[in-house]
Amino acid sequence: MKRASIISIGNELLNGQTIDTNVSWLSGKLLSIGIPSVSSYTIGDDIDSIIRSFNLASSDADIVIATGGLGPTDDDLTRQAFAKFLGTELQLQNELLEKIQNFFTSRNRQMSSKNKIQAYIPAGAKALANNLGTAPGIMAEAKGKLFIALPGVPSEMKQMFEESVLAELRRLAGRQAVVVRKLKCFGTGESNIAELLGDIMQRGRNPLINCTVRHGVITLHIIATAEDKDQGQQIVEKDEKSLRNKLGELVYGTEEQTLAEVVGERLAKKKQTIAVAESCTGGGLAKLLTDIPGASRYFTCGWITYSNSAKTSEIGVPADLIEKHGAVSEQVAQAMARGARKKAGTTFAIGVTGIAGPSGANEQKPIGLVYICVDSDSGCVTERFIFHHDRDSIRLRAAQTALNMLRLKCGID
Amino acid sequence: MKRASIISIGNELLNGQTIDTNVSWLSGKLLSIGIPSVSSYTIGDDIDSIIRSFNLASSDADIVIATGGLGPTDDDLTRQAFAKFLGTELQLQNELLEKIQNFFTSRNRQMSSKNKIQAYIPAGAKALANNLGTAPGIMAEAKGKLFIALPGVPSEMKQMFEESVLAELRRLAGRQAVVVRKLKCFGTGESNIAELLGDIMQRGRNPLINCTVRHGVITLHIIATAEDKDQGQQIVEKDEKSLRNKLGELVYGTEEQTLAEVVGERLAKKKQTIAVAESCTGGGLAKLLTDIPGASRYFTCGWITYSNSAKTSEIGVPADLIEKHGAVSEQVAQAMARGARKKAGTTFAIGVTGIAGPSGANEQKPIGLVYICVDSDSGCVTERFIFHHDRDSIRLRAAQTALNMLRLKCGID
Repeated sequence: MKRASIISIGNELLNGQTIDTNVSWLSGKLLSIGIPSVSSYTIGDDIDSIIRSFNLASSDADIVIATGGLGPTDDDLTRQAFAKFLGTELQLQNELLEKIQNFFTSRNRQMSSKNKIQAYIPAGAKALANNLGTAPGIMAEAKGKLFIALPGVPSEMKQMFEESVLAELRRLAGRQAVVVRKLKCFGTGESNIAELLGDIMQRGRNPLINCTVRHGVITLHIIATAEDKDQGQQIVEKDEKSLRNKLGELVYGTEEQTLAEVVGERLAKKKQTIAVAESCTGGGLAKLLTDIPGASRYFTCGWITYSNSAKTSEIGVPADLIEKHGAVSEQVAQAMARGARKKAGTTFAIGVTGIAGPSGANEQKPIGLVYICVDSDSGCVTERFIFHHDRDSIRLRAAQTALNMLRLKCGID
Repeated sequence: MKRASIISIGNELLNGQTIDTNVSWLSGKLLSIGIPSVSSYTIGDDIDSIIRSFNLASSDADIVIATGGLGPTDDDLTRQAFAKFLGTELQLQNELLEKIQNFFTSRNRQMSSKNKIQAYIPAGAKALANNLGTAPGIMAEAKGKLFIALPGVPSEMKQMFEESVLAELRRLAGRQAVVVRKLKCFGTGESNIAELLGDIMQRGRNPLINCTVRHGVITLHIIATAEDKDQGQQIVEKDEKSLRNKLGELVYGTEEQTLAEVVGERLAKKKQTIAVAESCTGGGLAKLLTDIPGASRYFTCGWITYSNSAKTSEIGVPADLIEKHGAVSEQVAQAMARGARKKAGTTFAIGVTGIAGPSGANEQKPIGLVYICVDSDSGCVTERFIFHHDRDSIRLRAAQTALNMLRLKCGID
C-alpha cells in the first residue's frame, strides 16, 4: 500500500494567523483513493526547514505533498528548497512565464516583476497548471518516490490537485481501495458508545472503527481496506449492520448528515410542519432548522421570546405561570410549545427555555439547566437537562437536543 | 529566545475527519508571550510515531506541546507514549481518579471502566487539571526541555493552557516581548483595506501588519517586537492610531470582539433595545445577538417569519405588499422592520429578507440578493446587497451586515 505524508509551509501557519485546512482536505481525498496519510509536517518559510521536512516526509511515505510557499514574494521559498532537495537548479520555463503574463493581461492588470520567479521550476520537474492563480505547482520523482508542491491557497490547491495530481495518484495506488462509512449518533457520551460497542473498536481490526465527537454528535468511522471497492463496500456494510444493532436509535444518520437534515427529511416526507419558540437558544434552533435548503417546506415560523413579556404577548404564556414557576421551568417550556403550535398551526412545535449563563443562575436553577418541550397532537413531551461547558456549548447542545427529541418523536408518530 | 514546537496527535487529523485548529490557536498564544513556534508535527494514534515526533520536536525547540490522544478509548495512546519517551512507567494517581469519578457523579452519570486509564500519569510528571472534561494534561521536564500534553478537544485544551500552562511559559519566556493588537474591520474587502493602508503593510517593518479575513471580518494584526511589554505597547499604540485614521468607521473593534458584542455594548450603554424580524437568515441574526452574555438587557424579541403568512399574521406585513413586490423586496424588508419595532416597542428593529439559495432565484432576483432594513424613530434605512458563495455564507454575511448597519446607526444616533 502506498502511503502519503503532507507538508504545510508558511509562517502564517505558525503564528496564529491561519488555520491549516489543507491537511484535512488532502488526507481525506488521499484516503478515498486508498492512500492513507501517515504524517504531516508544518514549518515556516525557511529553506533548510523545508528541505528537512522533505527528507522526514520521504522517510515516512512514498508520496510527499507540500502546500504553500509558491507565491511571488521574497518569503516564498518552496521552489528554491525543492530544487535544492532534488540537487538541481531552477530553470526559467518560457511557457509558464507567458501563462503568468496572460493571467494579468486577461484581468487588465500589470504583472509585477516579482511574479517572474513563479515561472522557474527545478530542472527535470514537471509544472502543474494553475487556472485560478499565478503559482504553478511542481511534480518530480526522486529516490523512487513522488514529490509534489501545490499552492497554499485552498481553492488553488484543490483545483490543481483534482485536475493535475489525482489521476497520477490513482494510477500509483492501484486497485487497493479504502471504503469509509460514517455513522452519526446523538444522545449519549463517547465512553458509553465505546462500552456498547465493546471489542469492535480494537486497533488492527479490518474494518477499523474510529470515533470522534463534536458538539455532542458522535461520529463512528468504519474504515475498510480491501482489494477493490466492492469488497470494501461489503465489509463496511456488514459492520454497519452490527453497529446499528448495538446502538439502536442512537444512530441518527450517515456521512455528513446533521440532525436538522434528518429531521427535515422526515418532516418533508410526511408533509408535517414545525414551529419553534425559543428563549435561551435565542434563534439557534431555528437557525439549525433553516440551515437546510428547502426548510420552508416544513418550517413556517419561529418566535424568540427572550423577555417574559414577549412570551406572554406573542405566544400566550400566562404571566402568572411565569411568576409562579419562573421563566425557566417545565411549565413554561410546555406553554411555549403549545402556544407556538396553536399560533402557527403546525404538526409539531418546540419550546426551549433555560439558563445559558454565565449569569442568571441560582441554587435551584444552575447554569446549563434547560427544559425542552415537543408538542404535537399526541400530547407533549417535556425533558429537563443540565448541559455543561460554556454559554455557546449550552446553547448549541440545547438546540441539538431539541432536534433529537423531535427526531425520536416524528420517527414514532 | 525560547522556541516551541507543537505536536498534534489523532487519526482523525490525517483522514479528512477533523481540521486541526489547535496549532493555530496555540502558536498565536505562544507568540503573544514572545515564544515563536518553529514547527508542528501531526501524526496518528500510534506509540512509535508519537515518540518519534517528541524527539523531532525537541530537536527543534525548548518547549514541546502535544495535543490529543488523552481520551479514555483504546486508540488514545499519548499517555503511554509520553511515559515511554521519558523512560518511565505510568502510575495511578488516586487523586485524579477521584476527580474523574466526581466528574461523572456530579453529572448523574455512571463512570465507564474505560475512564480509569485517564488517572494514570508518567511517574515524575505533573498532572494538569481539566475542569471541562475527564482527561488531565501532563507536564514534564526532560533533557533540559519542557514537554506538555494537552487534550485535543479545543475547549478543554484552551482552558487547560490558560489555567495551568501559560504562567509557567511566561516565566520561561523572560523579558523578550511580542505585543499583538488586533483591529477588527467590517464593510469592505481585503484589497481595499490594503490599498487604504499603503506602504504600512510592508514586510520587515516593526511592527509588522498582517491581515486575515474570515466571513467578511478583516482582522489587522499589529505585531510589535520589543525589549519589554511597555515598549511593545507603545509601538503598537502608535500604529493603531495611524491605522484607525486611515480606516475610519471600517474599524469596529479590537482583539476578539464580534460585531454583536460591540453593538450590544452600545445598546446597553444607551439603554436602547432591539427586535428582529428574519426571513432568509432564519434565526441567525438573533443567534448572533444572543451569543453575547447579558443580551437580555437590549434584545427582547425576534420573529422568524419564514412563510409569507407568518410575515402577515405575526408582524403585520400587508399581504398585498408581498404579492405586489415579492417577499424579497425593499418594501417587505421595511414592513418587517417597522412591524417588528411596533410590536416589540423597541428603539431599533431589523428586517431581513433574501434568497439564500440554492433554489428560489429568478432572473430579477438572483441567489444572494438580500434586503436589510434598520428602523428607528429617526426613520428607516434599507440597503440592497448581493452576497456570494454558498447558503451558509450568504446567511451569515447577511446577519453580520445587519449588525454592521445597526452599529453605524446606533453610533450616530
